[in-house]
Amino acid sequence: MTGKIAQDPGSDGPADKNSANKDSASAETAEQILAALKFDAQGLIPAIAQQHDTGEVLMLAWMSPESLRETLASGRVCYWSRSRGALWRKGETSGHVQRLVELRYDCDQDALLLLVDQTGSACHTNRRTCFYRALRDGASRILSEPEA
Amino acid sequence: MTGKIAQDPGSDGPADKNSANKDSASAETAEQILAALKFDAQGLIPAIAQQHDTGEVLMLAWMSPESLRETLASGRVCYWSRSRGALWRKGETSGHVQRLVELRYDCDQDALLLLVDQTGSACHTNRRTCFYRALRDGASRILSEPEA
Repeated sequence: MTGKIAQDPGSDGPADKNSANKDSASAETAEQILAALKFDAQGLIPAIAQQHDTGEVLMLAWMSPESLRETLASGRVCYWSRSRGALWRKGETSGHVQRLVELRYDCDQDALLLLVDQTGSACHTNRRTCFYRALRDGASRILSEPEA
Repeated sequence: MTGKIAQDPGSDGPADKNSANKDSASAETAEQILAALKFDAQGLIPAIAQQHDTGEVLMLAWMSPESLRETLASGRVCYWSRSRGALWRKGETSGHVQRLVELRYDCDQDALLLLVDQTGSACHTNRRTCFYRALRDGASRILSEPEA
């Protein structure tokens, strides 16, 4: 009987209710975190994107409250483009989207760490990471080439 | 004979010359990188510290040209404290120093990635990383407790 009720497409069953409650609680928590975060004079906060499974640091970009809200709601990372002064839905044109795995934030609540799953390359030069230059053995080095 | 010459304290031998040349080239390269970096209106650049072997992101802080120069010269990370308006030699009082393993910088040359070897905890709360808070499963979570 339990199984039959759960499978009834017309029922507003426990699963649906729990899901709605969870979404609501999640949105409320997101707003509490947003209220606690310290955005700078331009209304922005720096966000580090790190590949969740390899630990590779992919890029550093900026978020507005609006872009963070959209990221949490959609599960796809949206930054604020300082050069364009507009929302920057990462990968919207390139397809190189970042799926948000987890949002973390620091002790001072003025920096974000986004654990993401990066499709393709994070960098506009078509490299996996934006941090492809290094000072190594006293010389400036390029650590990776653009991907095919 | 070669060994004797190399060990002669009075000789300006090949080893000494190479070492001096390397240091000089390294300092020159550092200055070239510094000149290429884009510091913001406050003369600062964000720097991500990442534990070099585990990939853990430890903190985000800020550097001035002077603090970066000192970091490269000493091999110990020195930030710029925005709250104190002064050089911040990480771990000077706590002993929780960061040895610089490698400096990396991004495509836009406006963000740094410091691969470091962190002694003890990076966070002033005595946690290994400053990014110990997360939004997980719709709730705000503390991911680690202060170390003993």
